[in-house]
Amino acid sequence: MSTHTVQTLETFAGGVASPQGFTASGQYVGIKAAGRGLDLALIVSDRPATAAGVFTTNKAQAAPVTVSKAHLAATSGTARAVVVNSGCANACTGAVGMQDAKEMATLTASLVGCPTEQVLVASTGVIGVNLKMDKIRAGLAGAVAALGSDQGPAAAKAIMTTDPFPKEAAARVSINGVNITVGGMAKGSGMIEPMMATMLGFITTDAAVPRPLLARALREVTDDTFNAITVDGECSTNDCVMLLANGASGVTIDASTYDAFADAVRAVCLPLALGIVRGGEGATKLVTVNVTGAASAKEARTCAKAIANSPLVKTAIHGGDPNWGRLIAVAGRAGVAFELEQAAVTIGPVVLFKDGRPYDEFAPEAANYLKNDELTLTVHLGAGTASSTVWTCDLSAEYVKINAEYRT
Amino acid sequence: MSTHTVQTLETFAGGVASPQGFTASGQYVGIKAAGRGLDLALIVSDRPATAAGVFTTNKAQAAPVTVSKAHLAATSGTARAVVVNSGCANACTGAVGMQDAKEMATLTASLVGCPTEQVLVASTGVIGVNLKMDKIRAGLAGAVAALGSDQGPAAAKAIMTTDPFPKEAAARVSINGVNITVGGMAKGSGMIEPMMATMLGFITTDAAVPRPLLARALREVTDDTFNAITVDGECSTNDCVMLLANGASGVTIDASTYDAFADAVRAVCLPLALGIVRGGEGATKLVTVNVTGAASAKEARTCAKAIANSPLVKTAIHGGDPNWGRLIAVAGRAGVAFELEQAAVTIGPVVLFKDGRPYDEFAPEAANYLKNDELTLTVHLGAGTASSTVWTCDLSAEYVKINAEYRT
Repeated sequence: MSTHTVQTLETFAGGVASPQGFTASGQYVGIKAAGRGLDLALIVSDRPATAAGVFTTNKAQAAPVTVSKAHLAATSGTARAVVVNSGCANACTGAVGMQDAKEMATLTASLVGCPTEQVLVASTGVIGVNLKMDKIRAGLAGAVAALGSDQGPAAAKAIMTTDPFPKEAAARVSINGVNITVGGMAKGSGMIEPMMATMLGFITTDAAVPRPLLARALREVTDDTFNAITVDGECSTNDCVMLLANGASGVTIDASTYDAFADAVRAVCLPLALGIVRGGEGATKLVTVNVTGAASAKEARTCAKAIANSPLVKTAIHGGDPNWGRLIAVAGRAGVAFELEQAAVTIGPVVLFKDGRPYDEFAPEAANYLKNDELTLTVHLGAGTASSTVWTCDLSAEYVKINAEYRT
Repeated sequence: MSTHTVQTLETFAGGVASPQGFTASGQYVGIKAAGRGLDLALIVSDRPATAAGVFTTNKAQAAPVTVSKAHLAATSGTARAVVVNSGCANACTGAVGMQDAKEMATLTASLVGCPTEQVLVASTGVIGVNLKMDKIRAGLAGAVAALGSDQGPAAAKAIMTTDPFPKEAAARVSINGVNITVGGMAKGSGMIEPMMATMLGFITTDAAVPRPLLARALREVTDDTFNAITVDGECSTNDCVMLLANGASGVTIDASTYDAFADAVRAVCLPLALGIVRGGEGATKLVTVNVTGAASAKEARTCAKAIANSPLVKTAIHGGDPNWGRLIAVAGRAGVAFELEQAAVTIGPVVLFKDGRPYDEFAPEAANYLKNDELTLTVHLGAGTASSTVWTCDLSAEYVKINAEYRT
């Protein structure tokens, strides 16, 4: 990260339509039941944008994921538009589902005026139900008509399922004296929602970014942000993050300015990712889990994810219990190098286990710290020098209630 | 499994002191707070028994685990007694903890009249707290004095932490016309209890069993029973299962009678394992998860465990929601071979997804089935012919309450 970048990177209230040349819209077309909010979002670039995507690794991959991957391959990473519906995941829907996802792209392409392959598709909502294509056919023209550079907030609302709030972010950075802008929106929390699949993220920029650098930025930033969060350890059938760069700022990113660009993308993706955790079902606390002293970065991440998904850790956090024994027990079972005699557990600023012995006399201080809404837990594995950070939320009775009683 | 075995194997109400030559006791010595139940258990054989153990793979291994493993190694698998305390796990307790675990063995050995190395030690309870050795020193003689062949039930109670009920089982089988008996007791539910570590299992038999066959039986049966259950996916610092064979029946097991013996051990271990699941914190349902059509037995087990630990599956079961999409989503993310088009989901007798398409018209029938207390879920992966079965419980708000509010 150059000094130059640090001085000029700034975040601001904005979203996918903040970068030059991008418009967006969010409409209600009737996929969701009436009164459940908007359900169709569009993002359109006024010129072909270079595009990159990262998609779910779930083998039960939804039809829109298959179609978007095929379109990115067919165009070598070029897109004019993204069409997204909420209220139906179009997953486990067989041949009809594939046809529907393709038709969403075809209809959008004809309205926007571009090849079908330059339209990317995403869906989120109930698994195993077919899309109401009559509603989408009837509503798409209105969604195109509503496109505007001030409609990012509507688009961010239209991709929500049971998210408690929309998630948008934007950043600008000066590259050789000219501002470029990065904007984004996201929804969902893993597979936390009842019968609802997906974390979706959409990032736009008016920088011109060569495809290899665009793909690299998306991969690197996603790994540190969207892939570093967990609510319940569930990976959905529909997850995707897409990044579109249309060059409208006139600034072209190259190797010398890559770091500044990637930092701006990170400045957008991190608050979106943390917003997903904050909006997790039943969540009352945002928890930063640091694992240090690991034998490798991969082992550090593995252990941090195991801690972040542990029901015993998450319930202890919910109850404000500085239960360091549970953190040690998870570290010991995570399948990574771990040396008990060199290990340490720190809750906020309070060391509770170190040099093979407990410091339970500090438990009251740690309990007091756990009353905060944003918490940091650090586990030192005593096995090396690598580290990793992931973010999670607590596990509350409300999570169980929401997920057990969805259909009742 | 021979026809002979099937005809003569019978289970009965009994426990660790049911096989000939074994006695047991359960006492209150003051490790737990008064009113929280018994806290010291002994199992003694009147002659040296061959012994085998399987222990936690957690790298934060408790002192009694280290000591018991060392004793089994030193004696090549010979034991006269097992001493167990509840209320304190003696885990993460450093050098003092090791000294305490060794002293428990030494004191027991002098009272029983055997070498220290012929005593196995186990502890369960709070992590990170030292044992009250004064209480153990003062109480052990009384525990030895209380030994009796009718005291298995007391021993089963003395190893409980917050288990809702004691878990005992016994079986007898005729080997060449002579009965041998297998008895056992178990406690705990993985790491489900607040600050409580451990599933412990103790199995005795009056058969004479050569060490290689004893170790094989313990390994094979544990894999199908104790290792096939999960409550919350947590592996504790203290888990162990020990099997002692003293030969008092006069029957020696060999290759030709191994299957009959292993079946008797299984007939004891399976109800103990299912008892642990039934007694899981907040559990209201016992769920059998079958995975079929897997590429290998290992992949079948991996997928079954992923389903059994999925918070979305477990909350859906709790709420009686036949949410087959969640089962497909877990199968797709479990890292095993999976073919959506050949996959199927069956809840009880009701097929809800097959041949790549939903059968949601049967959802009401499945919802009705889910009102039962004992349930079977079957996921066919469409990728081969291997299968696996695991057992789990539902995830209720009560689990969160118990684990969040332990210290409040």
